[in-house]
Amino acid sequence: VSPRPTLAPGPCGQGTVLIGSRLPAGIATPATVVFADRLERNLAAMADFAGEAGLALRPHTKTHKCVQIARRQLALGARGLCFATVGEAEALTGGGLPEPADVFIAYPVWAEGDVIDRLAKLAGHAQVTVGADSPEAVGRLAPLAGQVRVMVELDCGLRRTGVAPENAVDVAQAVRQAGLDLAGVFTFPGHSYAPGAGPGAAGDEARTLTKGAEILASAGFDGLERSGGSTPSAKLAHPDALTELRPGVYVFNDAMQVELGVATLDEVALMVAATVVSRPAPGRLVLNAGSKVLGPDRPPWTTGQGRLADWPQARITGLWEHHAVVTLEDDPGPALGEVVAVVPNHACTAVNLVPELLVLDGDQIADHWPVAARAANR
Amino acid sequence: VSPRPTLAPGPCGQGTVLIGSRLPAGIATPATVVFADRLERNLAAMADFAGEAGLALRPHTKTHKCVQIARRQLALGARGLCFATVGEAEALTGGGLPEPADVFIAYPVWAEGDVIDRLAKLAGHAQVTVGADSPEAVGRLAPLAGQVRVMVELDCGLRRTGVAPENAVDVAQAVRQAGLDLAGVFTFPGHSYAPGAGPGAAGDEARTLTKGAEILASAGFDGLERSGGSTPSAKLAHPDALTELRPGVYVFNDAMQVELGVATLDEVALMVAATVVSRPAPGRLVLNAGSKVLGPDRPPWTTGQGRLADWPQARITGLWEHHAVVTLEDDPGPALGEVVAVVPNHACTAVNLVPELLVLDGDQIADHWPVAARAANR
Repeated sequence: VSPRPTLAPGPCGQGTVLIGSRLPAGIATPATVVFADRLERNLAAMADFAGEAGLALRPHTKTHKCVQIARRQLALGARGLCFATVGEAEALTGGGLPEPADVFIAYPVWAEGDVIDRLAKLAGHAQVTVGADSPEAVGRLAPLAGQVRVMVELDCGLRRTGVAPENAVDVAQAVRQAGLDLAGVFTFPGHSYAPGAGPGAAGDEARTLTKGAEILASAGFDGLERSGGSTPSAKLAHPDALTELRPGVYVFNDAMQVELGVATLDEVALMVAATVVSRPAPGRLVLNAGSKVLGPDRPPWTTGQGRLADWPQARITGLWEHHAVVTLEDDPGPALGEVVAVVPNHACTAVNLVPELLVLDGDQIADHWPVAARAANR
Repeated sequence: VSPRPTLAPGPCGQGTVLIGSRLPAGIATPATVVFADRLERNLAAMADFAGEAGLALRPHTKTHKCVQIARRQLALGARGLCFATVGEAEALTGGGLPEPADVFIAYPVWAEGDVIDRLAKLAGHAQVTVGADSPEAVGRLAPLAGQVRVMVELDCGLRRTGVAPENAVDVAQAVRQAGLDLAGVFTFPGHSYAPGAGPGAAGDEARTLTKGAEILASAGFDGLERSGGSTPSAKLAHPDALTELRPGVYVFNDAMQVELGVATLDEVALMVAATVVSRPAPGRLVLNAGSKVLGPDRPPWTTGQGRLADWPQARITGLWEHHAVVTLEDDPGPALGEVVAVVPNHACTAVNLVPELLVLDGDQIADHWPVAARAANR
């Protein structure tokens, strides 16, 4: 393996300290690694931001799926945790969180099969709140009266799930009819995921939550939580309009956050160690990390399918299941056999692909964290 | 749940028999299911094709990762099996295949860490062949002389890994110097993955394999295997140029194969059962199957991020981790709470997301097949 080139400072605040040099010698690749110091900085920065803004923080755990990180988020002052599925909540609360856990499943849960029984069991050791965007879904939750609270989902522009503020009353009245408690309104400003879209999405979020809460107040539903937040919009949130933030990706960041300008490459805490297995032509090299470890996410506005942390000019321009083709012009780049640190496009899908994360303290493997809620899709 | 509409025959040969009606009542969603009769037809059709063309069949197991399907492929006459990683080969051969297994790891294996020891162990109960596209990679395999054979990878147009035929001799001579046996040349005509590209890719494959074998013969390497094949190009392969085919996806097919015209919706054997959890606006419905169960693959030439098997006009137009937004104009589509059969864009990444596949015989769950080589990325 040839000595690595000294990098000129890159476009992302990167100096000459190569993060790849912190990968343990002889690490078996591909391996999904967490840089513990960067993780801690990311966790603290969001906790500090929320505290200063007067907003409760309820991190979305779908990004990390790890009990160890959830515990640290709570220790840093998070009010509770957010989940996408009942199974994710089961996996993490069953793994040793402080009890009673404060669980919000920010999803329009459709109570089929064993879902009622599972939610009731969860409510035995956690305060459980679920999302809903239709009277029909709420009606199916009626067996959980007195055990589970409901948040009405509002659509603030993503056009995914959620009702318009004007239609929130129908859902809220179904909550009351079912004997359930209405906890508030929530929205996901996911249209923040495009270059320059953060401020607009944060404004949409604020207006929608405010309007929804006002409409519900005039229908007799008072004291409601107003929950929002996505990583690209979190620090642009309007503190007067929200009571709670639910960002997820900020713990690790990823190539999408870098390209959105939300994080620098130095703030990415999760990477995949990969080996250069082929250099078939000048300017092209191939890594043994493909879509089955990096994840195949590629929104149209991204410049590639992932990054090399130590070569900011490089892009993954082709991705197959076990091959990443890296294009790197005007730079010799890493040599055949060299191990490099790859920044996935989307941390949440990358984490879900592996059974555990290798935790690096400095350049030592300090721990193995199971991805406890891996594939907990229901 | 409302009765399902009777469909007019769709553009993909689909009649009025709804595959969704074969999903077992009360199935917990999302669930990744295999229709056993369709799988068997797909397996038999490729075995028959290869037999009639006089080509050996070596299915790529990365698509299914299941011992049960590998056994059936061998029973139908496959010469051996193809893998992408040492770990995939370990997982399936360790799961009970007929011994000695005939294993080809069609990847430029870079022998670092424990790879030599693992390959030696594998060679104790299998005939093992690995790919290589550089003299450096071959040199590292020298400790396996007498135990492992090598196939030289040629690039026939994908521009991923592999050398040009002219450069195959350098790799072959390294094989000889290392005391290893050269088994042949192989290529992956993956540029077949674009509408209309199959015949051109099959022609490139044929020319490249022929030329590589000729160049090597003139350098004293005779009797070489010439291995090619991808699902979109397999049935377009030139029988005189190849000795072996390595298709993978054909066992299940997927929305990409449908859109390439390689399979009809009736030939898709793997689907995800999902529930309609939200119908927030006319023409838009949301399923509880997102990128963490369908896979986020979306090549630019696809028309969406997956299909509904029983609504050929529908497209998944937005995909998040646990939400699929389906656009379906001029059709009421499935009702809130209804369970539908979703065709993923890419079967290989979808299978890798779940611990097991539910096998349906008719409309009954007949078996659970572990995804034995799941996440076997190294």
